[in-house]
Amino acid sequence: MMLPKSVRMVEVGPRDGLQNEAQPVPAAVKIALIDALADAGLAVVESGSFVSPKWVPQMADTAMVLAGIQRRPGVSYPVLVPNIKGLEEAFKSGVEEVAIFAAASESFAQRNTNCSIDESFARFAPVAERALAAGLRVRGYISCVVACPYEGPVAPADVAMVADRLAALGCYEVSLGDTIGVGTPAQVLAMLDAVAPLVPVDRLAVHFHDTYGQALANILASLERGVAVVDSSVAGLGGCPYAKGATGNVASEDVLYLLNGLGISTGVDIDRLAAAGDRISAHLGRPSGSRVARALASKRH
Amino acid sequence: MMLPKSVRMVEVGPRDGLQNEAQPVPAAVKIALIDALADAGLAVVESGSFVSPKWVPQMADTAMVLAGIQRRPGVSYPVLVPNIKGLEEAFKSGVEEVAIFAAASESFAQRNTNCSIDESFARFAPVAERALAAGLRVRGYISCVVACPYEGPVAPADVAMVADRLAALGCYEVSLGDTIGVGTPAQVLAMLDAVAPLVPVDRLAVHFHDTYGQALANILASLERGVAVVDSSVAGLGGCPYAKGATGNVASEDVLYLLNGLGISTGVDIDRLAAAGDRISAHLGRPSGSRVARALASKRH
Repeated sequence: MMLPKSVRMVEVGPRDGLQNEAQPVPAAVKIALIDALADAGLAVVESGSFVSPKWVPQMADTAMVLAGIQRRPGVSYPVLVPNIKGLEEAFKSGVEEVAIFAAASESFAQRNTNCSIDESFARFAPVAERALAAGLRVRGYISCVVACPYEGPVAPADVAMVADRLAALGCYEVSLGDTIGVGTPAQVLAMLDAVAPLVPVDRLAVHFHDTYGQALANILASLERGVAVVDSSVAGLGGCPYAKGATGNVASEDVLYLLNGLGISTGVDIDRLAAAGDRISAHLGRPSGSRVARALASKRH
Repeated sequence: MMLPKSVRMVEVGPRDGLQNEAQPVPAAVKIALIDALADAGLAVVESGSFVSPKWVPQMADTAMVLAGIQRRPGVSYPVLVPNIKGLEEAFKSGVEEVAIFAAASESFAQRNTNCSIDESFARFAPVAERALAAGLRVRGYISCVVACPYEGPVAPADVAMVADRLAALGCYEVSLGDTIGVGTPAQVLAMLDAVAPLVPVDRLAVHFHDTYGQALANILASLERGVAVVDSSVAGLGGCPYAKGATGNVASEDVLYLLNGLGISTGVDIDRLAAAGDRISAHLGRPSGSRVARALASKRH
């Protein structure tokens, strides 16, 4: 196997994860989680989003969370910003990195952000421009890179076009998300092969959900294609694996176990990571969504 | 990716799965399960074992189960036999295929079969010989092909030696089992690369447990190495994914979803397979261990 020597793990649990959990989580618990994740060695911990609390009440306390965390040198704490208003709040909170998000499917863009893909870019262009002018780094997300819940399969060329537009806005990295977790390695590789000629693979990240259990197989295939940045969510936060309709993110512990086994360095400590995941799972009152975390816990007893 | 065009799925749920479930399952339920799995298109359904009921009470009704199933033409219903006594019972039940099992680790052989690896081969040699003489097919299992719960990592050369000895006894196929589910693709490929020069890859099967969530990644890597036979267990039978210390088999539904997505033909119908898994899970009173089954069920509601 041709694999990268090191991988940057982007932890999305405190944002993409908690935003999709049914119960609200107090700011103090989020702060402890984010600090524990940085302590475990994660260099990127997505920490919140400045979106309307009407739409995403779980993230209404993002400013409080950012004020409470202990910012470690060398660790990035990006937040999602949907518009200029959100960016201004991000400025006030002193963030160094923001993320913007687009969909590869028109129906998803309409239902999720209430505008077309073109309109979303018209909205994001000034956000990216102002963020970059202020010296912030901008990351881009694309949802539905394999399939859309409303349209079905999404053409790889559509994903490539959106990725190209995000890169043109100045995103240093584009994260490719299989939002509904339906892809298998064949579809993922076809998508990557369409995107990589437009946005080089060293500016791409992959973002999988484990809805159909395919996430690690997809990550392995992506690594073999040269992708070296992987999004994941501690304890699989973002959808309880036992609940109906859950579409949890792939668990960071499971990704790290894979990378460790492949001899790929990450700088992340699996015991500390699992401990952070176990604590938030205990707070949520449910078993961890990570098989690795459950296996490690069962070995300890 | 270089992948096989078709894969033979070997269903081990009714034996390897149910034998490791805490609660006993009535023969009638096993019979309905086996018939449903064959109806779903599985060409190999492991159906029981003739071992001492003192050691494995869950399999004490294997003769009754074999008498009750509707044997479909073209479907094999192998049973495990540990010795000549077991083989004679298998003869009485009119089976066409038996399986013998060895460990790649001395400690595991001692603790699991109460004899050394050499002694286990001395015991199996006449079993294989008589089975072959009677026109039966003989499959060989190896446990602990990546690591042993007592010894830790197992050398690929040790696995290769045991595989070679099983092939020499006349096993048409050797199934390589990561019994404790700790391997990742790097270890699996190192092991396959040691085995394949002695037993050609077209006589090898892989058998993964999803303890650490790595099974599908390991299967993908094995497929890329040319392995075209995969063992799995419907609904992940063989260890509840929510229980302490569980080491469930990889779920057949999850394997099939991967293979379907890769365009690899199996002859198995995923809806019928998932229905069979949902029924046995309901009988056991627990959610299915298959993420695919849970995702499909949540889509139906």
